[in-house]
Amino acid sequence: MKTIEVCLSPDLIKQHEIKGKLAVVVDIFRATSCMITAAAQGVEHILPVAEVEEAKYFQAKEGYLAAGERQGVPVEGFDLDNSPHSYLQKDVKGKKVVITTTNGTQAIDKAKEAEELLIGSFLNFKILCQYLKKQEKDVIIICAAWRGHPNLEDTYFAGALVSELIDDFKYINDCCSVARATYHLGQTNPKRFLTNSSHFERLKKLGHAEDIDLCLTYDKYDVLLGREGKFLKVLKADV
Amino acid sequence: MKTIEVCLSPDLIKQHEIKGKLAVVVDIFRATSCMITAAAQGVEHILPVAEVEEAKYFQAKEGYLAAGERQGVPVEGFDLDNSPHSYLQKDVKGKKVVITTTNGTQAIDKAKEAEELLIGSFLNFKILCQYLKKQEKDVIIICAAWRGHPNLEDTYFAGALVSELIDDFKYINDCCSVARATYHLGQTNPKRFLTNSSHFERLKKLGHAEDIDLCLTYDKYDVLLGREGKFLKVLKADV
Repeated sequence: MKTIEVCLSPDLIKQHEIKGKLAVVVDIFRATSCMITAAAQGVEHILPVAEVEEAKYFQAKEGYLAAGERQGVPVEGFDLDNSPHSYLQKDVKGKKVVITTTNGTQAIDKAKEAEELLIGSFLNFKILCQYLKKQEKDVIIICAAWRGHPNLEDTYFAGALVSELIDDFKYINDCCSVARATYHLGQTNPKRFLTNSSHFERLKKLGHAEDIDLCLTYDKYDVLLGREGKFLKVLKADV
Repeated sequence: MKTIEVCLSPDLIKQHEIKGKLAVVVDIFRATSCMITAAAQGVEHILPVAEVEEAKYFQAKEGYLAAGERQGVPVEGFDLDNSPHSYLQKDVKGKKVVITTTNGTQAIDKAKEAEELLIGSFLNFKILCQYLKKQEKDVIIICAAWRGHPNLEDTYFAGALVSELIDDFKYINDCCSVARATYHLGQTNPKRFLTNSSHFERLKKLGHAEDIDLCLTYDKYDVLLGREGKFLKVLKADV
């Protein structure tokens, strides 16, 4: 039976064997929700980078739209911020997008040893589950967390995912059960449950409360986004 | 209002400000359950050390009983293993005990910057809660985990503690909510819930299944154990 495990923070990643596995990277509020939105809007590809200066280079020299945030705040001179709404308000079809965020793009970088990497969000939850069930690799869910602190929303998403996959995978670490418990407690009213998260407060203060509903919407898009070389591209898969 | 936070693994401790706080160190299966049992049996003090060789030195040269384990297995030549039962079967009253374990004593070491340090277990849950409510410091619960991996039983205990303290403390990190959810799901049948933990399996294989019931017993002892210099001693407190 395939195995599944949850890594609650990139700072815990050294305890996991990642090689040969399929990593699902999760940053619900908001990086991976943005990436799935971008993919659904038809961007050519996404290039995740660690530093703002790298993103600015690709914006200036390679015709990329620059997107992202630092500490939840848009970066001056960027074309898009880290709100999924910004991808809906702008015509991004066919464009190349370079993204850098405080946590999400760093988590993608830390998962580089994985054999396959997919982007996880509620927005494409169903198709993601279908794909994970059908494929044959062991899976690790990597929560982007907040500057290394495990956070409520990514743990909640990991719990939703392992709960859905329980019949097809064997849980191999305790964080699967911790995440499942978090999902179990929160599922009747996720938004209310997640108002207890530190990042919810941060987003509300920054005026991004409307993003929260969108990021918690199930199955808005029927799109898979995976790593292809150094890019993230829509995955053509029969699911 | 006083604050409370949960650190799910010693590997995440660098993200927490510990100075000035009261740290509660938790290693339910089984180090901190042993320590509370030892305290209740009237040991003079406990000296937690990181290495087996250190423990052997104090055993040979300073008249200590040596206790602990490595990977859950008793250490050859030690007087006590890491089972609370071993403290009940041997006359330890008035003795000095040196303890080294895979996770618990390492967590105590990582908490050294805390202003005050207490040992947490279900065995002294009520008196611990009474003390924490009455005192004035901010509290951090440090889970010993398993070689850095957050584990189910310590997270569950942290959840029980934050749930009990919710009216007296402000939760300042998301792990309080994650731990509380874990406690919430498991509380109707903790033993059954914790059979899903990796360490439960490990203990059962090693023949320590009977320790599990004991470690999950609430309020067997009316004793507080705290740091005093390099020792752990029974705390004389009016609670």
